[in-house]
Amino acid sequence: MKDERATLIMFSGDLDKAMAAFTIANGAAGQGLEVYIYFTFWGLSLLRKETGDGELFLEKMFKRMMPVGPEQAGLSQMNFVGAGSMLLKTLMDQKNSATLPDLMKMAREREIQFIACQASMDILGIKREELIDYQHLRVACVKTYLEVANGARINLFI
Amino acid sequence: MKDERATLIMFSGDLDKAMAAFTIANGAAGQGLEVYIYFTFWGLSLLRKETGDGELFLEKMFKRMMPVGPEQAGLSQMNFVGAGSMLLKTLMDQKNSATLPDLMKMAREREIQFIACQASMDILGIKREELIDYQHLRVACVKTYLEVANGARINLFI
Amino acid sequence: MKDERATLIMFSGDLDKAMAAFTIANGAAGQGLEVYIYFTFWGLSLLRKETGDGELFLEKMFKRMMPVGPEQAGLSQMNFVGAGSMLLKTLMDQKNSATLPDLMKMAREREIQFIACQASMDILGIKREELIDYQHLRVACVKTYLEVANGARINLFI
Repeated sequence: MKDERATLIMFSGDLDKAMAAFTIANGAAGQGLEVYIYFTFWGLSLLRKETGDGELFLEKMFKRMMPVGPEQAGLSQMNFVGAGSMLLKTLMDQKNSATLPDLMKMAREREIQFIACQASMDILGIKREELIDYQHLRVACVKTYLEVANGARINLFI
Repeated sequence: MKDERATLIMFSGDLDKAMAAFTIANGAAGQGLEVYIYFTFWGLSLLRKETGDGELFLEKMFKRMMPVGPEQAGLSQMNFVGAGSMLLKTLMDQKNSATLPDLMKMAREREIQFIACQASMDILGIKREELIDYQHLRVACVKTYLEVANGARINLFI
Repeated sequence: MKDERATLIMFSGDLDKAMAAFTIANGAAGQGLEVYIYFTFWGLSLLRKETGDGELFLEKMFKRMMPVGPEQAGLSQMNFVGAGSMLLKTLMDQKNSATLPDLMKMAREREIQFIACQASMDILGIKREELIDYQHLRVACVKTYLEVANGARINLFI
């Protein structure tokens, strides 16, 4: 483990917050820090690759309400049932800004470490195979996050 | 004061965010860190034990809208006037996950330090006697938080 | 740059969160820390001084929906189309609490460093001249934030 580390807790699955998180993460990796992102709760939706079939009815209901992947993420504010989110994407498109999927791709190229929160996955009924395939993604618990965060230069909860 | 400390600012009173906060806090205490939680604004609702009788009409109105205690906390997203929150609780119940009251009890057993923000209590008209009884709960201002956070290993705003 | 620094990312433009951020920032400055606030996304609305005329229709639409300055900020919870925010302001007024504009004025008197996020300004179509005049406000990117945060005592995302 490098001496200089940054960790982000990706609690929110919102488009705007996720964009902020990955911009910070990519920037930190670009400056030579070892970066870890701990995906928990709504943040896990960013790692989902398809709707899995939960075994329990309530799980299915909850999971059906959660976005699947970065393309479906909404805004934390002024979302207006998706209109705000579409508007923002259109604005970014007009200016050739990096989209959330672009930023996530860059994060993987920079080998940012992804940790998916085991406890949240259990509660929400999300299985490992429903998450994206990525060499540096592991499923672990808060203990792992804390070991990494303790001694990191920058720790943020987003 | 121990050398290794973690601090959390519990700004949100949302069920999901509070669960994340107490899971991190309990984990950090379990790893031997001295943990402080600074409850401010909506986060104060987690410490309320009953509806107090504010003296001003507006205070009463505001306080009546704020949840009382962890059982009444809603979700930060997909709350649907409490339905999302009930659904999540049912899912956790089916899996025997620790509930928010469980996590808060554990925090007290681990002697996590609770600080209730004086300024927020003044604005919202919440009095000391309306907060839970807990030996390690004190009412203080942001100065106290900053003294603790300055030099801590992990500082998060939740 | 001083040895003891604190940084805040002001992502949210909400009244309650901005009040928490400036209270922390002013307190930290009062304790002798060098304080930086990085305004990004919705947080930029706190620095706007008037509705600028974006060149693109969508920009205009988005900017028209964003608040202009701290007086227009809403609450992150229980806003009820502005009623919650008015109620809170009335409560604070009755108790002579510092308002958000007061807190921002104090931050400027304490020479807290403001950084406006270049990328967010580009996406939202906000120009430098639409932001408040303040000697210690500069427009920069996440790289600058990271250089300041790396090695700071306290880093928070709000």
